[in-house]
Amino acid sequence: MLAFLNGQFLPEEQARVSVLDRGFLYGDGVFETIRVANANPFQWPEHFERLERGAARLRIKLPCSNEELGQAALHLIAENGVTEAALRIALSRGPGPRGYSIKGADHPTLAMTLHAAPKLDPDHPRLWNVVTTAVRLPPKDPLSEIKSGNKLPHILARAEAESRGADEGLLLNGAGDPIETSSANLFWLERDTVCTPGVESGILPGITRAWVLDWCRQARVEVREKTVRSSQLSRADGIFATNSILGIVEIQQLDETRAARAALSGRLQRAWLGALNA
Amino acid sequence: MLAFLNGQFLPEEQARVSVLDRGFLYGDGVFETIRVANANPFQWPEHFERLERGAARLRIKLPCSNEELGQAALHLIAENGVTEAALRIALSRGPGPRGYSIKGADHPTLAMTLHAAPKLDPDHPRLWNVVTTAVRLPPKDPLSEIKSGNKLPHILARAEAESRGADEGLLLNGAGDPIETSSANLFWLERDTVCTPGVESGILPGITRAWVLDWCRQARVEVREKTVRSSQLSRADGIFATNSILGIVEIQQLDETRAARAALSGRLQRAWLGALNA
Repeated sequence: MLAFLNGQFLPEEQARVSVLDRGFLYGDGVFETIRVANANPFQWPEHFERLERGAARLRIKLPCSNEELGQAALHLIAENGVTEAALRIALSRGPGPRGYSIKGADHPTLAMTLHAAPKLDPDHPRLWNVVTTAVRLPPKDPLSEIKSGNKLPHILARAEAESRGADEGLLLNGAGDPIETSSANLFWLERDTVCTPGVESGILPGITRAWVLDWCRQARVEVREKTVRSSQLSRADGIFATNSILGIVEIQQLDETRAARAALSGRLQRAWLGALNA
Repeated sequence: MLAFLNGQFLPEEQARVSVLDRGFLYGDGVFETIRVANANPFQWPEHFERLERGAARLRIKLPCSNEELGQAALHLIAENGVTEAALRIALSRGPGPRGYSIKGADHPTLAMTLHAAPKLDPDHPRLWNVVTTAVRLPPKDPLSEIKSGNKLPHILARAEAESRGADEGLLLNGAGDPIETSSANLFWLERDTVCTPGVESGILPGITRAWVLDWCRQARVEVREKTVRSSQLSRADGIFATNSILGIVEIQQLDETRAARAALSGRLQRAWLGALNA
């Protein structure tokens, strides 16, 4: 596999960064994960916009424009001869002097790699078993709104879920309310209303979350951003999760409770796959 | 400069890790920063113990024993011909498949590098100007007790402090109480009692913090772990901070308030420098 690193295309095993890179030391960076379909990165503008916003929040100067990075992504996809994949962009502040000060760290590292993406078949949709984890995210955390390189809470939630035999772990915020899973945004149904926690709850506002909210508005399905208690969630009229690689995934089991079937989830996934493959 | 990477000693510019390393992508690791004096890493056992505890918490298998890593550190110091330095150990989970799951990421990365350490002169002690930052750390966060590679809150606090002309930034916890600065633990004096926030407040329990508490107990200086409000802190009978590279640093200014002189801080720094150079 070829990788992209700081303007160069080179074999993945040669794509290496300094041990002084602040990404490696402190998670001092942002990243994006994008589904590639028909050799095309789906929703590229939305992902690039979030990358740009995260970099600005961390005061990391993006070393290239939307057009330049987009061209490099297409070149990477073509050179590797893949059509279906997951594309990861990682931007770090690069190497710098010892310590937390960002002074003197002016050469960001930008890497893109391609990975296998799970096949998605609308006739055989995934169903997740989710458990509530011990991980708490701080509310009103300015970092939660960007896809930062500080992902230990999500890693620990995922590890806890897997060790308990589940697919994904549910994370709560400081108020004890469920807000997202380790790799996906959370939705639930109250009768025909599609509900999801608002940005102020501490979630990472996902690209697929926004796509679902848009779809609902266009389809005149009522949507509400609101908080939910754990006990309300397990009694909801269906639960599902969204991310950029898998689309919309129904949650069939939450802790000890069998969730109600969420028929809308299958309809959403078909629509999302339609857009992905358009 | 020579660096140590996964058992090898090599020129620092050749010490490189994969762009798939989870340290680089997610800050998925722990680190230590140790003062080297007279070619000896000060308080090595304490630092190694914290590294080991952090690795266990993140389920990263330490690829070497205390003795092996200690020998490698001494070798690195000797080969570089330095006697006074800052030694940084970085341990990450290493490369792995895409995504947060820790499955399949079984080859940790262990790097050690040496850096210039600021000179410390007890006759001309540093004095810090500290400002309260907008950064909030979650209370009772299990990650705060380990020196994890997720340091964006501390980086943002430091950047905010520097942009406001200060040396260091004060971080508050979710309850709004000051708990630490971006790179140091916080102490204050109430008459002759030495006070510092307890571990449950959300601090990283520092090695030098523990050294100060020990020293106080031996010198029969009363110590108390307690919470403090911002308004109480600026009215304290002296404020100081501690870290492993600088020892004990008096805080002379907190936001708009000139702090009371903390004579004990100079006495502690002399004692710490004595232990460092013993």
